[in-house]
Amino acid sequence: MNPSLEDIVSLCKRRGFIYPGSDVYGGLSGTWDYGPLGVTLKRNIMALWWQMFVEQRDDMYGVDAAILMNQKVWQASGHVDTFTDPLVECSNCHGRFRADKIDVSKCPTCGKTDTFGEPKQFNMMFKTSVGPVASDESISYLRPETAQGIFTNFKNVVDSLYPDVPFGIAQQGKAFRNEISPRDFIFRSREFEQMEIEYFVHPSDWERIFEDWVKLVHDWCRALGLPEDKVHELEVPAEDRAHYSKRTIDFEYDYPIGREELLGLAYRTDFDLGNIQRASGKSMEYRPKDGSAPFVPHVIEPSFGLERAVMAVLCAAYTVDTVGDDERIVLKLPRALAPVKVAVSPLLKNKQELVAKAREVYQLLQKEVGAVMWDDNGNIGKRYRRQDEIGTPACVVVDFQTLEDGTVTVRDRDTTEQTRVKIDQLTLALETSR
Amino acid sequence: MNPSLEDIVSLCKRRGFIYPGSDVYGGLSGTWDYGPLGVTLKRNIMALWWQMFVEQRDDMYGVDAAILMNQKVWQASGHVDTFTDPLVECSNCHGRFRADKIDVSKCPTCGKTDTFGEPKQFNMMFKTSVGPVASDESISYLRPETAQGIFTNFKNVVDSLYPDVPFGIAQQGKAFRNEISPRDFIFRSREFEQMEIEYFVHPSDWERIFEDWVKLVHDWCRALGLPEDKVHELEVPAEDRAHYSKRTIDFEYDYPIGREELLGLAYRTDFDLGNIQRASGKSMEYRPKDGSAPFVPHVIEPSFGLERAVMAVLCAAYTVDTVGDDERIVLKLPRALAPVKVAVSPLLKNKQELVAKAREVYQLLQKEVGAVMWDDNGNIGKRYRRQDEIGTPACVVVDFQTLEDGTVTVRDRDTTEQTRVKIDQLTLALETSR
Repeated sequence: MNPSLEDIVSLCKRRGFIYPGSDVYGGLSGTWDYGPLGVTLKRNIMALWWQMFVEQRDDMYGVDAAILMNQKVWQASGHVDTFTDPLVECSNCHGRFRADKIDVSKCPTCGKTDTFGEPKQFNMMFKTSVGPVASDESISYLRPETAQGIFTNFKNVVDSLYPDVPFGIAQQGKAFRNEISPRDFIFRSREFEQMEIEYFVHPSDWERIFEDWVKLVHDWCRALGLPEDKVHELEVPAEDRAHYSKRTIDFEYDYPIGREELLGLAYRTDFDLGNIQRASGKSMEYRPKDGSAPFVPHVIEPSFGLERAVMAVLCAAYTVDTVGDDERIVLKLPRALAPVKVAVSPLLKNKQELVAKAREVYQLLQKEVGAVMWDDNGNIGKRYRRQDEIGTPACVVVDFQTLEDGTVTVRDRDTTEQTRVKIDQLTLALETSR
Repeated sequence: MNPSLEDIVSLCKRRGFIYPGSDVYGGLSGTWDYGPLGVTLKRNIMALWWQMFVEQRDDMYGVDAAILMNQKVWQASGHVDTFTDPLVECSNCHGRFRADKIDVSKCPTCGKTDTFGEPKQFNMMFKTSVGPVASDESISYLRPETAQGIFTNFKNVVDSLYPDVPFGIAQQGKAFRNEISPRDFIFRSREFEQMEIEYFVHPSDWERIFEDWVKLVHDWCRALGLPEDKVHELEVPAEDRAHYSKRTIDFEYDYPIGREELLGLAYRTDFDLGNIQRASGKSMEYRPKDGSAPFVPHVIEPSFGLERAVMAVLCAAYTVDTVGDDERIVLKLPRALAPVKVAVSPLLKNKQELVAKAREVYQLLQKEVGAVMWDDNGNIGKRYRRQDEIGTPACVVVDFQTLEDGTVTVRDRDTTEQTRVKIDQLTLALETSR
């Protein structure tokens, strides 16, 4: 019933959702390229997030910080010293592994036993050098999270727009981690996209506002079409939380690879603004407009991984069922996320009248609905299968009856039911259906 | 009349469009962070481009390739060997400069003469190392252009979607160049966003299709609100073109820093696909569906720099005029690009009936128009100035008359004219005005 990871990977490559990065040159481990349908799915998820958490709210401000930042950012945040994974090397074959992910009694590559020494701490930030002189001062890193691009702009945003607390700053953008062993398709890659919010609150309000965010996260999961029984809240116990966090919930999803983290919600106190204040010597205090006492805001951080959302959406949508005697693969995507909203076909591609009429319908829908695909390849059955696999909610077919009475066939992706609709009622019918 | 670069930089920081990158730690040269209004302006430009060149066309396919690519990409493309700038170092103060940008007879930093030797070739790609073992094989670069992420996916896109030639692949994304001297605000930075199209054509068709693209580029400049007399076509003469290009037009704009490149249009022949074919050993031939002879497509490349578009848009929009006796700064942005479409204010913020009614109008417009700002800070005159500076096309004010007859004041950004509009006709009035 549930798809395997291989099913998802195979569909993604075959239909133009996701390809291995640098594929034509044999790849680059831990990188992935989005094809035409994957780009649109990804953009639709990002747009939905931005709409829900930024555009439709009065208390949210967007930023887009540079990926390359002054190294002081990562010294102050603790990443230079502690953003590490334990690395072991086999003394026989020199294979390197994450010590906490393998059985270190025996090398998984060469099979020799007792070849590993004590683990070394391997920093996961990609290092580079900025400017024409390579030196200690020129070191920079590809950001391992977008959050610091928000914290470092806290004062700039307050100075330009002076919002009332509580307010949030949101960012979407790339982050990079030099994983020792990238794995599980796009789940753990070396380059990925984050969608993060730092929500600044008065310290006395955090518990109530944290609860509001728990609800908003569930709203988000519903908007992605994730079944509620596959989304789980894991209250991270004190001993497993970052030392500065007083409460953290990992939202996990039942992926084909097991129950794994989809997104996180953490109360980070004033840890980050406090670090910046100390390291930069600049005050991060906020002065309320009503004249009450200034304070350094505390922070609630909902942190979303885009690729983990893409993977959950694909896994939730991937369905195998039977139509008549045939088995089919169908992506039951929420309409808002589907890369193609409607496919338009002439019943036969060698009948000029049908093609001309279908082109008219295509133009109309392209203008009124958008995201329309023209599809005249193979017979109608094959077209339906192809559109099912990419999650197109509706297929419109122009046939001989169309020329007589101005109706077209609209075929529903999930039920496979076909209904006849007048062309002038088509836009409404498509937009109010799934 | 025309703004200086300093005018633009100052407005951008003050109003929350663009801040220096890593500002709180003294910056990181050549990087910039976008604030709340800048993010929206940038997103609006990117969305307009994607709509115009991808969504509204049948022949265009999006991709989103990883920033980190296999080093073979940059060996095959020639970037490892030749993507360099000439670098000189002063033997007295050890300052480093681009040899073609300074008078090398005298050091611009310490003032000593004859301190420079022969220029060395400095590669502008940022280098990093991928994976747990740093070696020659682990070298990777931050991509210096998005184009190669398109060429390397040519075969994947053809295999998944089999489009008819001519067709294009489009990408928006970050690129990085380790400029020796980043300068002129966001015009020449070390991290920037590109919007590139590789348009694949039969070799016999390139001249006609190139001309079509010249027209499309002008349509784009008009959509950005750039005055036509400030956009110039520079036919790049043969001796200045890349060796593989048979025709290149640089589209230049009259920026405050002078006439400089806004975007480029180049005919690249089969140079890139040919390189990939040789280096990967995989055929890049395209087989037409009608059975005619297979060929390696030739390429026309319209290449847009997002930051250069942002800077041109801001410079074109920035206007100083007088209203009554007062001088004002106003950003005359095209409505589609304005970060805020409409501001809503109660005439007085301490009159409960006015505030409640204004909140109603705000909610209505947030739902029907979107991108609405609530503004009750200071007196009405100050609010108008503030909205003028960020380019808000219309300000709606709820006053005592509103409570009587259901009309509000709509004040136009450019003319400063005020008209009274019924609340139920407001959405239409706002959307059909500028």
